[in-house]
Amino acid sequence: MVLTDHPWPDVEIERRILAAAGLELHAGPIRAGTASDIEELVAKYDPVAIMTCWAEVSARAISLPSALRVVARMGVGLDNIAVEAATARGAWVVNVPDYCVEEVSDHAIALLLAHWRDVVVLDRACKRGEWNPTSAEARRVRNMTVAIIGYGRIGGASARKLARGFGCRVLVNSPSLLRDPGAGCELSPGIVVAAIAQVQEEANAIVLHLPLTSSTRHFVNAQFLAGCRHKPLLINVSRGGLVDNEALVEALDRGQLSGAALDVLEGEPAPPASVIGRADIIATPHIAFLSDASLAELRQRSSEDVVRAVRGEKPMHACNTP
Amino acid sequence: MVLTDHPWPDVEIERRILAAAGLELHAGPIRAGTASDIEELVAKYDPVAIMTCWAEVSARAISLPSALRVVARMGVGLDNIAVEAATARGAWVVNVPDYCVEEVSDHAIALLLAHWRDVVVLDRACKRGEWNPTSAEARRVRNMTVAIIGYGRIGGASARKLARGFGCRVLVNSPSLLRDPGAGCELSPGIVVAAIAQVQEEANAIVLHLPLTSSTRHFVNAQFLAGCRHKPLLINVSRGGLVDNEALVEALDRGQLSGAALDVLEGEPAPPASVIGRADIIATPHIAFLSDASLAELRQRSSEDVVRAVRGEKPMHACNTP
Repeated sequence: MVLTDHPWPDVEIERRILAAAGLELHAGPIRAGTASDIEELVAKYDPVAIMTCWAEVSARAISLPSALRVVARMGVGLDNIAVEAATARGAWVVNVPDYCVEEVSDHAIALLLAHWRDVVVLDRACKRGEWNPTSAEARRVRNMTVAIIGYGRIGGASARKLARGFGCRVLVNSPSLLRDPGAGCELSPGIVVAAIAQVQEEANAIVLHLPLTSSTRHFVNAQFLAGCRHKPLLINVSRGGLVDNEALVEALDRGQLSGAALDVLEGEPAPPASVIGRADIIATPHIAFLSDASLAELRQRSSEDVVRAVRGEKPMHACNTP
Repeated sequence: MVLTDHPWPDVEIERRILAAAGLELHAGPIRAGTASDIEELVAKYDPVAIMTCWAEVSARAISLPSALRVVARMGVGLDNIAVEAATARGAWVVNVPDYCVEEVSDHAIALLLAHWRDVVVLDRACKRGEWNPTSAEARRVRNMTVAIIGYGRIGGASARKLARGFGCRVLVNSPSLLRDPGAGCELSPGIVVAAIAQVQEEANAIVLHLPLTSSTRHFVNAQFLAGCRHKPLLINVSRGGLVDNEALVEALDRGQLSGAALDVLEGEPAPPASVIGRADIIATPHIAFLSDASLAELRQRSSEDVVRAVRGEKPMHACNTP
């Protein structure tokens, strides 16, 4: 079997679990190659399973093996896998939907607090030898209204941390929440379902916890940003493609946003310096999913589900019905 | 009346409230002068009230005015005021004990998350043009044990945010908690009273929410640090004098601590670069108390209490009995 890429230093956890099931692991590089690099790797090893972290697994890569049983996303989102091609040829697509719920929501709140307590900018000034308390700009978190866009496991965790922990007012938005229970419904104390117009009208921060699909691409665009009334912060810990970089920069320049914190950006792993270089943007290199605990859990559970699929059992986290 | 220093740009809130009570405001500079600068200011204006933020109000400064009624700390801690001298001459000492409870505990948690989600270090690397997810070191916050040393209003707020919001195990320590209800008692779900030895044995982070007194000075010293078992983070948002800088740097070098985040340091406003310059230390310039909301509240409430004292009423927040 082939592991296309692995943004962690070794593949010992994967090798041990797969070897115990009689599967030989062929690992690609740490950093993801291109779609055609992956096609080449697959053509070379004729795998029964393809595991991928960030690399694109194209319809062609999926068509090549003689007896493919499973394509495993070592993560949550499936935007880098040609799921329909796998389904069509009878291969499972699996993911690990809940290994990093705590991490991604912790990261969103860490970024939010880093902005509202001015930590990154002030540390930078202190390290330059400046000690200037009057330059600080900080907000009382309890007084803030935070909008969570996307309300799956991760969105729910962020909402709970903000409402229960900090006493924020939390607006939550997703198409399914708007259908049922509907806008205005309080899901639990301080967590209220809101339409996008209300988010734009009232939010001091907007946190994206959305999957990337054709209908969510550039969800944050010039039109959305022009409707925001309170110069909100924008936090993206989901997928870069949710935000139009150009519209973001213009909104910051125009004062439509007071700042942004981005763990993901269009253009990564080489995102434009005109975005991440800004003092009003905090950037981290797509690590919201990561912790010592989450990474071990991800690698183990993904390998175990591959073993299940290869043995002919139903995988734990099937994302298609081949 | 004299305002010794004001780390905010103008004194309009103070001037308005004092003027309405017939008091003329003489404001010192933004940045605090020395004790003798303050004595000079006091000698010049013969005030009935002295308001101070960071400047030292010495026994001599307190002895100079002909009819002093009140010394007001625009903040919580009284370590820069010669309280006994005020009491002896029959002047009130007042503070504003609860204007920044939310802010200081928000700041402590912002610093904690900035370390555990590696935000400051990663943003710095991104701004240098590096995008290296494999360099990140992050922890699952829910799995952490956090010790809160000092359990007044602010310590209580931090404990609640961590336990309710993030699901951390929280150990809380103060002399009065150890007397009653005693070590081992669970104050609320996830918040347990612990002796210092247990804190050293079990904590992944230690947050200082202590006042600075002769018995808490250098609470974090070489001996305390040598007893810590889990390479904790150290967070100080209270007073610089609680931590021995030299012992801190040695503990980081020896791996007894995994990092520190300091809003306050011995040597501020010019703290040693050998401390704040370190990559494993996050520094902010004594702004934990600050937000748009807290600052307006502080300035208003402090001015109002001064007016009460000058009128001969009992102040709202008397810290002595003259």
